Amino acid sequence: MGFDALWAELEPVGRASSGGYRRYAWTPEDRTLREWFTSSAAGLGLDVTTDRAGNLWAWWGSPDTDGPGVVMGSHLDSVPDGGAFDGPLGVVSAFAALESLRDSGFSPAKPIGVACFGDEEGARFGIACAGSRLLTGVLDADRARGLRDGDGVTMAEAMSAAGVDPARVGRDDETLRRVAHFVELHVEQGRGLVHSAAAVGVGSSIWPHGRWRVDLAGRADHAGTTALVDRDDPMLELARLVTSARTAAERRSALATVGKVLVSPNGVNAIPSRVTAWLDARASEETAVRAVVADLAAAGLEPVEESWTPRTPFDRSLAVQLSALLQGAPVLETGAGHDAGVLAQAGIPTAMLFVRNPTGVSHSPEEHAEPADCHAGVEALASVVRALAGHTWPAP
Amino acid sequence: MGFDALWAELEPVGRASSGGYRRYAWTPEDRTLREWFTSSAAGLGLDVTTDRAGNLWAWWGSPDTDGPGVVMGSHLDSVPDGGAFDGPLGVVSAFAALESLRDSGFSPAKPIGVACFGDEEGARFGIACAGSRLLTGVLDADRARGLRDGDGVTMAEAMSAAGVDPARVGRDDETLRRVAHFVELHVEQGRGLVHSAAAVGVGSSIWPHGRWRVDLAGRADHAGTTALVDRDDPMLELARLVTSARTAAERRSALATVGKVLVSPNGVNAIPSRVTAWLDARASEETAVRAVVADLAAAGLEPVEESWTPRTPFDRSLAVQLSALLQGAPVLETGAGHDAGVLAQAGIPTAMLFVRNPTGVSHSPEEHAEPADCHAGVEALASVVRALAGHTWPAP
Repeated sequence: MGFDALWAELEPVGRASSGGYRRYAWTPEDRTLREWFTSSAAGLGLDVTTDRAGNLWAWWGSPDTDGPGVVMGSHLDSVPDGGAFDGPLGVVSAFAALESLRDSGFSPAKPIGVACFGDEEGARFGIACAGSRLLTGVLDADRARGLRDGDGVTMAEAMSAAGVDPARVGRDDETLRRVAHFVELHVEQGRGLVHSAAAVGVGSSIWPHGRWRVDLAGRADHAGTTALVDRDDPMLELARLVTSARTAAERRSALATVGKVLVSPNGVNAIPSRVTAWLDARASEETAVRAVVADLAAAGLEPVEESWTPRTPFDRSLAVQLSALLQGAPVLETGAGHDAGVLAQAGIPTAMLFVRNPTGVSHSPEEHAEPADCHAGVEALASVVRALAGHTWPAP
Repeated sequence: MGFDALWAELEPVGRASSGGYRRYAWTPEDRTLREWFTSSAAGLGLDVTTDRAGNLWAWWGSPDTDGPGVVMGSHLDSVPDGGAFDGPLGVVSAFAALESLRDSGFSPAKPIGVACFGDEEGARFGIACAGSRLLTGVLDADRARGLRDGDGVTMAEAMSAAGVDPARVGRDDETLRRVAHFVELHVEQGRGLVHSAAAVGVGSSIWPHGRWRVDLAGRADHAGTTALVDRDDPMLELARLVTSARTAAERRSALATVGKVLVSPNGVNAIPSRVTAWLDARASEETAVRAVVADLAAAGLEPVEESWTPRTPFDRSLAVQLSALLQGAPVLETGAGHDAGVLAQAGIPTAMLFVRNPTGVSHSPEEHAEPADCHAGVEALASVVRALAGHTWPAP
C-alpha cells in the first residue's frame, strides 16, 4: 500500500475533536489499532504473533527456523492529547520499508520483522514502555498486573478484557531470541535535525531519566470559614514544589517538569485535603538528575521514586556504521525514553532513526513531520534493514 | 421518629469508603436522599410538593388556604468528600423539630413547612445554591439549563433524567408566596460557638464572596526533550497564582483559596497545554475581596468572575429577638453561603441557627457536632418556630 495509504488509514483512530490523540493501552481504540496492525501485516502476506506481554510481531521469513532476524517497529498508543507521529510513524514506516524491500526484489539473508509494542507511553497505568519492559522482564509481572488506571481498573483486568491472558505475562525469552537487531524509527522530539538541515538522524543514547511522586498532605476545610493561619493547605506546597523543581533544574542543567497533578477533593470552596504531583526529571548526566531530586528532598518535598532509567547507549559501532550508510546522517542523543532503549538494555543490538520535526514539539497535537521527511525516513529505514539483513553484514 | 433515628437512616447514603460524602445533584444518591425526604415527611403525615426548580417542600397545614407559613430547612447534597452535617443537620433537625412541636400539642397559627433545596453546594455544575437561586430567579434558567458537569452532561439533561422537567425551571412566585419566614439550622463552620461556650448561635450576616476562574494557557510539549527556555509551561503560572492569591489575602485581610485545578493533558511526561484554576475569595468587607482580585489582575493573572454574592444580612430585628428567645445565644456572621442567604436577598424574613462544631472543620469527613449539641439545635429550632408560628408573634 505504501506509506501514505497506511498513514491515512491509521490517522483517524482515537483522534478527539480537539485534534489530540487518546490512544490508551487495552482500550477500544487500542483494539482498533491492533486490528489495523494485523490487517496491514496480512496485506503484506505476514502472519502476526502476540508475545507474552501482548506485543505484536509480524515476520517475513521464520526466525524459528532461519535464525534471529532484523526487527523494525515502535508503538501505536499515545499520551493524553498526543500527536499523530510519536510511535505510529515508526510502525507505518516499518511496514512501508518492508514492502519497499520486497518489491525491490531484495532477498534477505535473515528474517525481517515488524513489531508493535503495547503501552509505551504509560498514559493509562503510569509505567512507560510497559510492553517492552514486561517482554524483557525488567518490569515485574505481578507489579504490572496490579497497576490501576484512574478508574481503578487493574492492568490484569484491562488485558483480560482485551483478550490477552495476564497470567502469561513475564520475560519472554522465546520472543527475544528471535531478534538479532532492533531498529526503531521515531519522529525527533527536538530540533537537532532542523539545526543540521538533515531529514534523518541516528540515535546515540537516551538520557538518564526518572519519575517521582510527591504526596502533599493537608487538611480539608471550608474555603469561606477557615482563617488563613488555621489552614493546612497542600496547594501552597504544590506551588513550592513547582517553583523549586524549576529552580533546581536551572541550577543543575537538567530538565524537570510537573505535568500531572491530582487534587482531592478538587472543589472550588474546599481547601484540599491532598495534592499529589508527579515530577519528571532528566539530564545528559545522572548526577544532574539526582541533584535536582536531592534539592527537592532538601526542601522537605520528599519525592518518592516511581521509575528510574539510567543512561541507555545504543550500540555504538552500529550507530557509526548506520550514520555512514546514510551519507553521514547526524548522530543525536535524546531525552525521551523508547522501547528501543529497553531492548538495548536487554543486550539486543539496537539502533534508532529520527525523522526531522520542524518545531521540535511532541506529545502535542502540533507534533509534525513533513511528508517528504517521512518518505526519507522510510528510505533510510529500508537501507538500514537491507544492510543488516543482507548477505554482507557486518560490513567489512 | 426523632432526630437520632432520622439521622441514622440518612447517614449511610452517598458515603464513600474514605468516609467522605459524595452526594451530588441529580445523581442516584440524590434520588435516594429525595426519597428519604419524602418518606420522612410521609411518616409525619405530610405531603411533599416539588417546586419549579426541583426543591422539595413538606407542609403541616396549607399555606395556600391558611396564608404563608414558617419554613425550616436546608439541603442534602454535599461537596466532594464532604461531611455528614453540612446541610443534612438542618433538614433532619427540621423534621425532628416539627415532630416535637406536634407531639407537644402545639397548635400553630400558621402552616409550618420543611424545605430541602437542591444543589446547594454546586459540586456538580459549579453554581452554589442553584436550587434556591432558580427559585428566586437570580440564577437565569437558560444559563442553568446549559451548565455542564465534568462529563459534559447539562443540568437540563441531569434534571430530566431525575424526572424533573427543566422547561419549568424559573422564578417560582407561587412557592415564594407561601413562605412568611425561613429558618435554616446549620452546623457552624468555624469555632465561634466553641469560644462562646454555647451549643447554638444565631446568624447575623453572610460575608460578601465570589468565585473566579483563571485560565492559564501554555503549549503542550515533551517533558524530556524541551529545553527550559523553550517552554511555555502553565504549571509555573499556577504556582504564581497560588502564592499571589495567598499574599493578596494576607495583605487585604481576606480569605482566598485555590481549591480546584484542572490540568490538561495531565500526563507525567507532558508539559501541560492548559491549567484552569478556580479562586474563592471572601472577606467581611466587599472592598477587601475586590482588592484581592485586583491584586491578581495587576499581576497579569486575569481572574474571570463566575459568581458574586454581596454581603447578605439576615433580618436584624429577627436575629436580635431569636437571640433573646434562646437565652442570649451568640450572634455570629459567617463566611459561607447558604440558601438562607438567597431567600433573605429575595426579601423573605430569614434567620439562621448555628450548632457548635468542636473543631470548626467543615467540607471534610472530619466535620462534626456532638449529639447533645444537635439535640440542643432541635430544641432551639422548635422554640423559634413555636414563636414565629404561634399566636403571639411578633413579640410585643
